[in-house]
Amino acid sequence: MAERRPIITLTTDFGEADYFVPALKAVILSINPAAEIVDITHLVPPHDVYSAAFTLLCCYKDFPRWTIHLVVVDPGVGSGRRPIMVGTDDYFFVGPDNGVFSYVYQRETVNRVVHLNVEHYYRAPVSNTFHGRDIFAPCAAALSKGVEWRMMGEEIEDSTRFSLPMPSVVSAKHVRGVVIHVDRFGNIITNLTRADVTDDMIRAGARVRVSPQEAVAVLTHFAEAKPNELFAYFGSAGFLELAVRGQSAARMVEAKRGIEVSVVIP
Amino acid sequence: MAERRPIITLTTDFGEADYFVPALKAVILSINPAAEIVDITHLVPPHDVYSAAFTLLCCYKDFPRWTIHLVVVDPGVGSGRRPIMVGTDDYFFVGPDNGVFSYVYQRETVNRVVHLNVEHYYRAPVSNTFHGRDIFAPCAAALSKGVEWRMMGEEIEDSTRFSLPMPSVVSAKHVRGVVIHVDRFGNIITNLTRADVTDDMIRAGARVRVSPQEAVAVLTHFAEAKPNELFAYFGSAGFLELAVRGQSAARMVEAKRGIEVSVVIP
Amino acid sequence: MAERRPIITLTTDFGEADYFVPALKAVILSINPAAEIVDITHLVPPHDVYSAAFTLLCCYKDFPRWTIHLVVVDPGVGSGRRPIMVGTDDYFFVGPDNGVFSYVYQRETVNRVVHLNVEHYYRAPVSNTFHGRDIFAPCAAALSKGVEWRMMGEEIEDSTRFSLPMPSVVSAKHVRGVVIHVDRFGNIITNLTRADVTDDMIRAGARVRVSPQEAVAVLTHFAEAKPNELFAYFGSAGFLELAVRGQSAARMVEAKRGIEVSVVIP
Repeated sequence: MAERRPIITLTTDFGEADYFVPALKAVILSINPAAEIVDITHLVPPHDVYSAAFTLLCCYKDFPRWTIHLVVVDPGVGSGRRPIMVGTDDYFFVGPDNGVFSYVYQRETVNRVVHLNVEHYYRAPVSNTFHGRDIFAPCAAALSKGVEWRMMGEEIEDSTRFSLPMPSVVSAKHVRGVVIHVDRFGNIITNLTRADVTDDMIRAGARVRVSPQEAVAVLTHFAEAKPNELFAYFGSAGFLELAVRGQSAARMVEAKRGIEVSVVIP
Repeated sequence: MAERRPIITLTTDFGEADYFVPALKAVILSINPAAEIVDITHLVPPHDVYSAAFTLLCCYKDFPRWTIHLVVVDPGVGSGRRPIMVGTDDYFFVGPDNGVFSYVYQRETVNRVVHLNVEHYYRAPVSNTFHGRDIFAPCAAALSKGVEWRMMGEEIEDSTRFSLPMPSVVSAKHVRGVVIHVDRFGNIITNLTRADVTDDMIRAGARVRVSPQEAVAVLTHFAEAKPNELFAYFGSAGFLELAVRGQSAARMVEAKRGIEVSVVIP
Repeated sequence: MAERRPIITLTTDFGEADYFVPALKAVILSINPAAEIVDITHLVPPHDVYSAAFTLLCCYKDFPRWTIHLVVVDPGVGSGRRPIMVGTDDYFFVGPDNGVFSYVYQRETVNRVVHLNVEHYYRAPVSNTFHGRDIFAPCAAALSKGVEWRMMGEEIEDSTRFSLPMPSVVSAKHVRGVVIHVDRFGNIITNLTRADVTDDMIRAGARVRVSPQEAVAVLTHFAEAKPNELFAYFGSAGFLELAVRGQSAARMVEAKRGIEVSVVIP
């Protein structure tokens, strides 16, 4: 069997037309030629830290243990925000301390957060505007070579986390959430999970309301959906989603991030 | 010489902004860390099985022998359509049994089509909506590790193929075809090959008509084309194409997929 | 430590929807399975040789020594323009002789330019329209396997270079340049470097005028910028740039490539 190459994933808002992404890869491969780089996405909307956090959330656990997840969505570049490394039982996360790892803090056992302040591991000189190339990528590459986190900075306790949109229980028959994402197919992803919308509620005929006009059933089997019909189901990322077979649900109900969603038992 | 890593190519309609593509890669690398993953495209128009089939057709043969071509354009996910593996003399193809391999059936010696129904090779639990991650990617990864197809399912004889648009001979001096693709440069690709438009026809002054107004010569040498002039030639994928030097032919004649094309000897 | 795989980078105007990019990769991996392929970008505007030259300029030096930079932006495909290899002290560059390596000629010690005319290293048959697949990729792959450049063609002295937009000194207090790029964030990149706009000028209060209305200070620290304020600074590629925190500067001043920029000491 081939030796396992250390994996570094990239999640950025750099787009795919400029030199930013290849510069990250060039720096990583210069430091660790054995690194295997996997793009998560570079199409995070510019400076949209929440969107980056969500996309990472939906796939980071599918990667092999000890994958290093590098995120560079960094509206505060050039200000005082800290570069950090987050270590959990299974993964490393490297990026700016701007809340982009809030879902990781919520869902994982975090063993440590390290302020990556040892300049020995930076690319010199450090530019004011491209810490992805000059700080985050070289630190991730060093980690992938087995450099101990103790060498790269100091543990901190006060890392930034933003309050994630949380579902609220209005009554035993009513749960409220929000739209957190719309995907390429126009599927509408909410922040509601199976913990919020239980099997009991579904069996009791729970309906999902995403706009004043629309209230639809939660289906347990995708194939039950009729053509042109909006329906709800638990999607592959574990969230309640709304979709229309072969069409864009988001276009049908004009949903976008932040819009309220209610699940009600009639 | 380095050991050859098994290659898995990806052709999907997932776009590049969501977590779908990295989830496929994560699953593949978790099962086979030695796999070399090559993107064909993720910009297949949503649910456009024919477009995926065409793009794959144009490049699958350029890959090394035993490459595994994984295609996930799957409008029928969650319904009864079968996950399959197609084995030819040189390649493996993995994807949904929805006709996406119709060109492969037409052009290759197919040794077997296997219904991938052994759940041992699936990712558990299988979601209703993302068989790319939960069935197709893990089966392709297992194949790339050398798992025998016999272990992964049963041979079937009735796989789905759609009728590809075929050229028709109207008379000895008239062949009819259709536009099957428009590429990034605005070049118009037809389904006509050298078998349909022979050297004899070209020498006899065959002209190509793609709209009522336009009738152009078939050039044997690309460099013969004049600026701003629509012309026809055999392109790099083996099909008769229409182009304009430095401009979009598709914009000039408003061509799109499905439009009729005639080659006529005057 | 893992053996270093030879790196080949790709810069093209092929887009990401067609079979062009995977065909390049397929050909490279067929010839050299050990090659590590890194995408720079495939979103160069169609036929925009200057844009390709600029994007390559901004990142080629970040790659490890002996990286092979393959560029296929080739409006002259099918005409007489020569396929070439440029060898410097640190890198190889492979592409059409259309000026796309003009920045390399300007900034590097070029040891040789070779006309890649030995058809033994081409993919057969060579199409009229896709020399990327049939000439450039196979030659780059051969180079990556250690084939001597002497085997692949003859040295030439008359390679094509276009005149790069050069800053001009109007007076001791006035330097003139042009906008050479606008990036994804709307930052405006000029052709002015620290050699043109010196620290002395900045200390003397130099201001940048990019349109009749706007004249802004050159900041030494990015963090000095106020919200909604256009400001100038030296960016991560070494050029004077104009930006607005969290907004698109290009939209604010309607800048695009070719527009004049002046730096003036009041």
